[in-house]
Amino acid sequence: MAWEISPEERARRRRTLWERTDPYGLDGVVLFGGLNLLYFCGFAFIPTERPMALVLTPEALVLWVPRLELEHAHATSDAPRVVSYPEYPDARHPMEHLADLLQEMGLGQATIGVDTDGYAGRWGYRGPKLSEVLPRARIRVIQDEIERMRMTKSEEEVALIREACRWAGVAHRLLQESTRPGLTETEVSGRASLEATVAMVEALGPGYRAPGYGLYGAHAGYRGQVGPTSALPHALPRNARFRPGDVLVTGAAANVGGYLSELERTMVVAPVPQAAARFFALMEEVQARAIEAVRPGEPCSAVDRVVRRFFDEHDLWPYWRHHTGHGIGLDYHEAPFLDHGDDRVMEPGMVFTVEPGIYVPGLGGFRHSDTVLVTKTGCEVLTDYPKDLPSLVIPA
Amino acid sequence: MAWEISPEERARRRRTLWERTDPYGLDGVVLFGGLNLLYFCGFAFIPTERPMALVLTPEALVLWVPRLELEHAHATSDAPRVVSYPEYPDARHPMEHLADLLQEMGLGQATIGVDTDGYAGRWGYRGPKLSEVLPRARIRVIQDEIERMRMTKSEEEVALIREACRWAGVAHRLLQESTRPGLTETEVSGRASLEATVAMVEALGPGYRAPGYGLYGAHAGYRGQVGPTSALPHALPRNARFRPGDVLVTGAAANVGGYLSELERTMVVAPVPQAAARFFALMEEVQARAIEAVRPGEPCSAVDRVVRRFFDEHDLWPYWRHHTGHGIGLDYHEAPFLDHGDDRVMEPGMVFTVEPGIYVPGLGGFRHSDTVLVTKTGCEVLTDYPKDLPSLVIPA
Repeated sequence: MAWEISPEERARRRRTLWERTDPYGLDGVVLFGGLNLLYFCGFAFIPTERPMALVLTPEALVLWVPRLELEHAHATSDAPRVVSYPEYPDARHPMEHLADLLQEMGLGQATIGVDTDGYAGRWGYRGPKLSEVLPRARIRVIQDEIERMRMTKSEEEVALIREACRWAGVAHRLLQESTRPGLTETEVSGRASLEATVAMVEALGPGYRAPGYGLYGAHAGYRGQVGPTSALPHALPRNARFRPGDVLVTGAAANVGGYLSELERTMVVAPVPQAAARFFALMEEVQARAIEAVRPGEPCSAVDRVVRRFFDEHDLWPYWRHHTGHGIGLDYHEAPFLDHGDDRVMEPGMVFTVEPGIYVPGLGGFRHSDTVLVTKTGCEVLTDYPKDLPSLVIPA
Repeated sequence: MAWEISPEERARRRRTLWERTDPYGLDGVVLFGGLNLLYFCGFAFIPTERPMALVLTPEALVLWVPRLELEHAHATSDAPRVVSYPEYPDARHPMEHLADLLQEMGLGQATIGVDTDGYAGRWGYRGPKLSEVLPRARIRVIQDEIERMRMTKSEEEVALIREACRWAGVAHRLLQESTRPGLTETEVSGRASLEATVAMVEALGPGYRAPGYGLYGAHAGYRGQVGPTSALPHALPRNARFRPGDVLVTGAAANVGGYLSELERTMVVAPVPQAAARFFALMEEVQARAIEAVRPGEPCSAVDRVVRRFFDEHDLWPYWRHHTGHGIGLDYHEAPFLDHGDDRVMEPGMVFTVEPGIYVPGLGGFRHSDTVLVTKTGCEVLTDYPKDLPSLVIPA
């Protein structure tokens, strides 16, 4: 089985892009964002200081890459034509080569849709905008349209996310089973992630692919969220050692065909402090209410408002740190957001994390995160892992 | 021992920033780039859709963060004042909160230096430029000055990079020792990285820190560069299985105090194909010549020209894929580049990778990469690992 998006689906995406951008009257589209290239032509690569772009016209699909990526792009992308420039910075700037290509394709004075006006850059890259090297073209930013396409997942995408959720669960199970007082997060996270990844690539077989950014296989860890430091929602790894009574916040994820999952649990090393049990129960309840609120036709903000009301009712505002969740797909966080300021409407096929958190200084953080799919009638929780405190206590 | 930059050094960096930007007549500086924040105030964080900024005036140092990061920023940055906004997207855009802060600090109509005009964005972020929310201020992009500061490493920085090179070597040794035909890159890379990381955090002790992006501890792996696929300079992991006669290209790195190292070797699984031995010898020679050419006072381009001459002399151009190397420090690739188009002058304290590569379709890639420090008289190779073929053959 091929654990990746089919070329047919990517061809459909390209057709949809033309349909959705019809009002812009575009002659061509030039995309620079790495995940946009993956989405529309299947090419996955390490983004560096060397810009790349996908050029689409109604007739052509051309991938423009540094010499370094020429064979790779030929072997793994949908683009029938791959054009390369030598290097960055080189004696001549890559964007001048791109301008030549676009001129040659008849786009020198055309109306061109872009995700960003030039390469957003990375790792020491500097360069002109596309509008600067092609001054007679009309540049229209269409990233909103692309984002809207990427927000709603197809059946193929959902199947990959579903599988990624399964393996985040496996990694989390291994993490939980190997955590015990006296060990360090470095060792426990590392072993669980390695074992889950080895099992995953064996189970999924030679058709397994993990295009996109960074994660190959599955990961589970603590990222420093051990004991009182778990009260920092975005702590960083610090080789923390587990101790009795510690509140722990985990994070697990997997990458299947470029698509990501998110599964987080609050666990407690026995004996469970009374205060921890109380906040844990509140967190369980608020997450359940938030998940219930995920349904099509409602604005994303409605989910966050349910959580905010809960914080009102239970006097929890001193412990509030962030909104309820975010879209997820090719990227770990994607629009739209389960945030009281985001009124975009939830639609079947959207995938969100639901993860309201309660953070108590001196005690710890309380956050479960599940990946959920908006269905025609409500939502389906794609991550499957126990949520109740007894199931999440680490024996001392 | 604290494996991180001292607060005194960061204070010196802030003074240097004012000195170097004196000609711009700045009243204040606003920085958005994650590694620039780390460089100037010591705050390391997970970059997300939520913008953050460091605001400097001759009198003040203020870190501006989402609510989520408030306690974290207080605990781990140099900034005496931390100001938070609620969330992104929220009912009110974060950049409007930032404008309020800058107004309150008297910068509403000031001349302000920035690394980028607004948050470059990530993970679904959209927002206005700083110049749009502060229309009466004069915005001056000073990223070139910051980059120039970051290019030349201090003694403290070199000490951290030196240690990071040592642990890349340990990870690589474990990788080499555990590689044998029949095993997969997933398992071998994962185990070597885990064991090296556990040993490293134990050896460096509680003072070990890995601020910055992604890597905690040490890593060594193959990233798909196994057998003929090693002819792709930027292949991706694919659970490749090692076979007799495979050419392998490795990559190892470590993070110490936020500073990175790079160590790459070409290895061959016995029996060594004759053609592989020939290209290996050419690669060894061209890398030695390139390292010899790294010396202060010469332009970066001179090093790449030595390599290009070698490609001329030995008719190797069909196998050329990329320039000779790049700066390295807080980021994996940094300016300047060892590229025939980069005439910036090498100075003592600059740190580069030197990694000319020869890529032979159907056979494999040939690339050693070492991290080198420009000294007063030449350069010092900071990575210490055997380079000769007999030392790099994996027994069958």
